[in-house]
Amino acid sequence: MSRWAIGLDLGGTAIKAAIVGEKSGIVTDRTIPTDTASGPAGIVAQLAKIIADLYRVASQALDSADCAGIGLGAPGAVNADTGTLSYPPNLPGWTIVPLRENLQDCLRQEEHLSIPVFIDNDANAAALGEAVYGAGRDFRDFLMVTLGTGVGGGIILNRKLYRGAHGTAGEVGFLIVDFEGSSLHAGIRGTLESLIGKKGIVALARRMIDASPSGSSVGKFCGNDYTKLSPRHLEHAAKEGDEVSLALWNRVGSILGVGLANVVSLMDIRKFVIGGGISAAGNLIFHPALDHLRDSTLLSMHEGVELVPALLGNKAGIYGAAALCFG
Amino acid sequence: MSRWAIGLDLGGTAIKAAIVGEKSGIVTDRTIPTDTASGPAGIVAQLAKIIADLYRVASQALDSADCAGIGLGAPGAVNADTGTLSYPPNLPGWTIVPLRENLQDCLRQEEHLSIPVFIDNDANAAALGEAVYGAGRDFRDFLMVTLGTGVGGGIILNRKLYRGAHGTAGEVGFLIVDFEGSSLHAGIRGTLESLIGKKGIVALARRMIDASPSGSSVGKFCGNDYTKLSPRHLEHAAKEGDEVSLALWNRVGSILGVGLANVVSLMDIRKFVIGGGISAAGNLIFHPALDHLRDSTLLSMHEGVELVPALLGNKAGIYGAAALCFG
Repeated sequence: MSRWAIGLDLGGTAIKAAIVGEKSGIVTDRTIPTDTASGPAGIVAQLAKIIADLYRVASQALDSADCAGIGLGAPGAVNADTGTLSYPPNLPGWTIVPLRENLQDCLRQEEHLSIPVFIDNDANAAALGEAVYGAGRDFRDFLMVTLGTGVGGGIILNRKLYRGAHGTAGEVGFLIVDFEGSSLHAGIRGTLESLIGKKGIVALARRMIDASPSGSSVGKFCGNDYTKLSPRHLEHAAKEGDEVSLALWNRVGSILGVGLANVVSLMDIRKFVIGGGISAAGNLIFHPALDHLRDSTLLSMHEGVELVPALLGNKAGIYGAAALCFG
Repeated sequence: MSRWAIGLDLGGTAIKAAIVGEKSGIVTDRTIPTDTASGPAGIVAQLAKIIADLYRVASQALDSADCAGIGLGAPGAVNADTGTLSYPPNLPGWTIVPLRENLQDCLRQEEHLSIPVFIDNDANAAALGEAVYGAGRDFRDFLMVTLGTGVGGGIILNRKLYRGAHGTAGEVGFLIVDFEGSSLHAGIRGTLESLIGKKGIVALARRMIDASPSGSSVGKFCGNDYTKLSPRHLEHAAKEGDEVSLALWNRVGSILGVGLANVVSLMDIRKFVIGGGISAAGNLIFHPALDHLRDSTLLSMHEGVELVPALLGNKAGIYGAAALCFG
């Protein structure tokens, strides 16, 4: 017996989906743009269609008796027990939706498929994906941090997702490290996301460029249009030796290190898997983060501390969604 | 069958010990000064003696077949699996000591008692005490915070101690909330303990008194000798309506609220049991803490948030130490 599942990652821009073999990984995958305008019912129909499509493909090679289910990672607050999704940030018009039930109903009625559906938060799915198939395979406990537009996280304890009593655990972007600072996100001062989310990084870079007497070479990467400045430009400039960009990443990494220090002190988690688009800056972030994490924790907590890059890129979510079915 | 145990709380000043019935609680208790000068061997002998003494008392009324063991809470890093204690902060001359083994050996050789010993960190023991016998009885998950000379913590998840992989979880005093601030503890900037540990509170109060144009009435509580200023004086002055002292506690509570917000966001823990000598300030701390906790977390995480005072005072440790044996 070789189990398989269909994993889906529902995002505000795209729906990613794949047939995933428990042992073999992704067999085939698809990406379609999310029809956000069609609201919950329309998106559920989209999900059901892509599932039915992949299920037909899978049936040609795999035994349907080995199908462990449909796994779905979704943005916002997901209750994995009841299967409801509450207020997903990038899906306009959604409030509280019984997503699992709606999807199972739609699959049965429209596609004549009776398959169990498992759902979880997208950050949790990504963490589980890295735990089972990626950079976290050797770690019993770790925190997955996603550095992108936002700063997200998922916690693995004892090789299982730690969701917390209400399913909201792992919101590492909301860790407050500078409560007297001026940066704000969602009305909260000094959170990790306000400081080193994409907007925070760009705002910090602009301040550092303005304050630098010798200027920065990052201008040539953004066509000297600083309204277009992005972390990618700052990464290129730093790799070319631009002092301001190097100092910027050093500070971003240091702040990340402070946030991770809080995780070490509170939870005794010492392994960190870092993913998301901004983690492409690699050691520009990793080195100062690890240094600052050490400086910000007791010596007795340093043993085994490790930061590693995520391995699955933007496929962590579909891997993890499938892993929800094998769990 | 009615099980019982002997619970001990080893501190830098005193050893507290009690016979604890699993259902009935403390039957009888003792406190002796810790003979810190005698080092590990001397203190182990002290512990063995008080245990033997209490065991004899217990034998008169309780069945020795129902004795579940000896539980011991100790300061510093305790490995509950191996039974070693590392670098306890208030016990000079201790490095890494196989405390459980040494105590079991001493009990056998000197006191002719063969009883299993369970040990854990004192903050964990206090949390477990409140979980089983105190303010946390109705909570499945909670964080116990001890506000005293230091700021300590212990985490209960699913009604069990959460120790983390290395046994160092729950170090809430090391949560960094102001990484750019000037307060330091153990070389780390902006930790909760640096800000609202006893020293931090007194230093903040002095700054606020100096900066206040209309002065403070706290002077009369400390005999106008500000080198003797203590949180207790500030509590009395605030309860009398002193504006500076009221503002001080408001700020202390707010900072605690920021720290607890980090626990909510990261771990999805929403219940907090607050103990330790400084928690005697009660609602002077609790009200601003709860307000600021709410302001510092997402609305979707507010459901069920609660701060309650600890119930067992300085006996939480012996209760919890005994509970280690029943677990």
